[in-house]
Amino acid sequence: MRMDVLTLFPAMFEEVFAASILGKAKEKGIVSLQAINFRDYSNNKHNTVDDAPFGGGGGMVLKAEPIFAAVEALISEGAAKPRVVLMCPQGEPYTQRKAEELSQESHLIFICGHYEGFDERIREHLVTDEISIGDYVLTGGELAAMVVIDSVARLLPGVLGNEMSAVTDSFSTGLLEYPHYTRPAKFREWEVPDVLISGHHINVANWRRKQSLRRTWQRRPELLTHVELTKEERQWIQAWERNPADSI
Amino acid sequence: MRMDVLTLFPAMFEEVFAASILGKAKEKGIVSLQAINFRDYSNNKHNTVDDAPFGGGGGMVLKAEPIFAAVEALISEGAAKPRVVLMCPQGEPYTQRKAEELSQESHLIFICGHYEGFDERIREHLVTDEISIGDYVLTGGELAAMVVIDSVARLLPGVLGNEMSAVTDSFSTGLLEYPHYTRPAKFREWEVPDVLISGHHINVANWRRKQSLRRTWQRRPELLTHVELTKEERQWIQAWERNPADSI
Repeated sequence: MRMDVLTLFPAMFEEVFAASILGKAKEKGIVSLQAINFRDYSNNKHNTVDDAPFGGGGGMVLKAEPIFAAVEALISEGAAKPRVVLMCPQGEPYTQRKAEELSQESHLIFICGHYEGFDERIREHLVTDEISIGDYVLTGGELAAMVVIDSVARLLPGVLGNEMSAVTDSFSTGLLEYPHYTRPAKFREWEVPDVLISGHHINVANWRRKQSLRRTWQRRPELLTHVELTKEERQWIQAWERNPADSI
Repeated sequence: MRMDVLTLFPAMFEEVFAASILGKAKEKGIVSLQAINFRDYSNNKHNTVDDAPFGGGGGMVLKAEPIFAAVEALISEGAAKPRVVLMCPQGEPYTQRKAEELSQESHLIFICGHYEGFDERIREHLVTDEISIGDYVLTGGELAAMVVIDSVARLLPGVLGNEMSAVTDSFSTGLLEYPHYTRPAKFREWEVPDVLISGHHINVANWRRKQSLRRTWQRRPELLTHVELTKEERQWIQAWERNPADSI
């Protein structure tokens, strides 16, 4: 899979693309990643990429021309038609489902603005997707593009080793993860729950499921509407609703 | 304000902390940013930071000891008691309101895991906040910490120039932004809307408000419940509800 980022700050991507999972996925040849400065595609003599908005007001607006030129150059290099993704607060809220959808593509192009608006013609006639990673304000689209690239790359076959996939699987339950503990069994005055050192696998599995449900019920109850629960699990939740302070 | 990040991948932060707004905020002395490898705080001979989970199962778990040691070393350096923020999928969903809250602090410490769980005693006895930037799976907390740091830093007085603040203000309306256009007035066959080159300021302001409302109504209708609307604005929305294809 190929992922290209158009940005005025390509250096921000260097170490992020080189580190950890993304770096390994590149080395293995599973993914090709590049950050391209779209200022290089400006056709005016000062390499200007922005201008004042029609209709007045503060701020600057990124011009259509350099971004069209950069995207079209990238499209002409590739075999398949890419998805062209605009990172912006007005976009569709990003989800794991969207990550899975994008991971099926062979070529993605990300467009990052930086505290400026985009000329609307980019949105109307060039991009295929607009994505927002959350309802908070960032200084640019760069970090948002990194988030999408990381979440998509880790879904590609061969990127995660088996060990890591196992950790991942816990997300597929639709619940928040249960608590983890590792050595020492007693750290300062705080001990690991007895059940985890009991060696009783069924009790461990039950405790984890119950903790996972309890944490989801406490912190993100809206997630429970998408999870299939057993009769016993529904009874646990009813008991917590009667006595929220009940420990497990 | 001081922001420290504990991570196994400090290099990822170098260019991100140097570029653009964060770099300028550092230069101006408004913010101090450092990424610290918590492996340096491990007290065992192989500098191990993780171990197998009690109770069995796949994946590794980050040990309590190096992370406690690193956080406590940072706390002892600072004058004020810092907030200690764990980046994790089980955390509170991040919002602009949380960014504003964190921007009031003088010292924040972020803890980033990397495709591994945290020993629960870190969560229970060390951290003050757990944050998730969205419901998607990342390979680590590093990109999430960058997102929080960027969104907090830009709120600090003196970080954004006036010009950028103006752009920002449009978020304070609670609506998605209206379309922006800049030169050329005709790009390929696509022209700027007449009203924006009319020079009629009241018409421009009305068009922008209507576009902003329309876009929010189409894409994120749930945001409208938090916005005060005039009688006329409510009538626009009722008209769109009757005829969703109506153009403006």
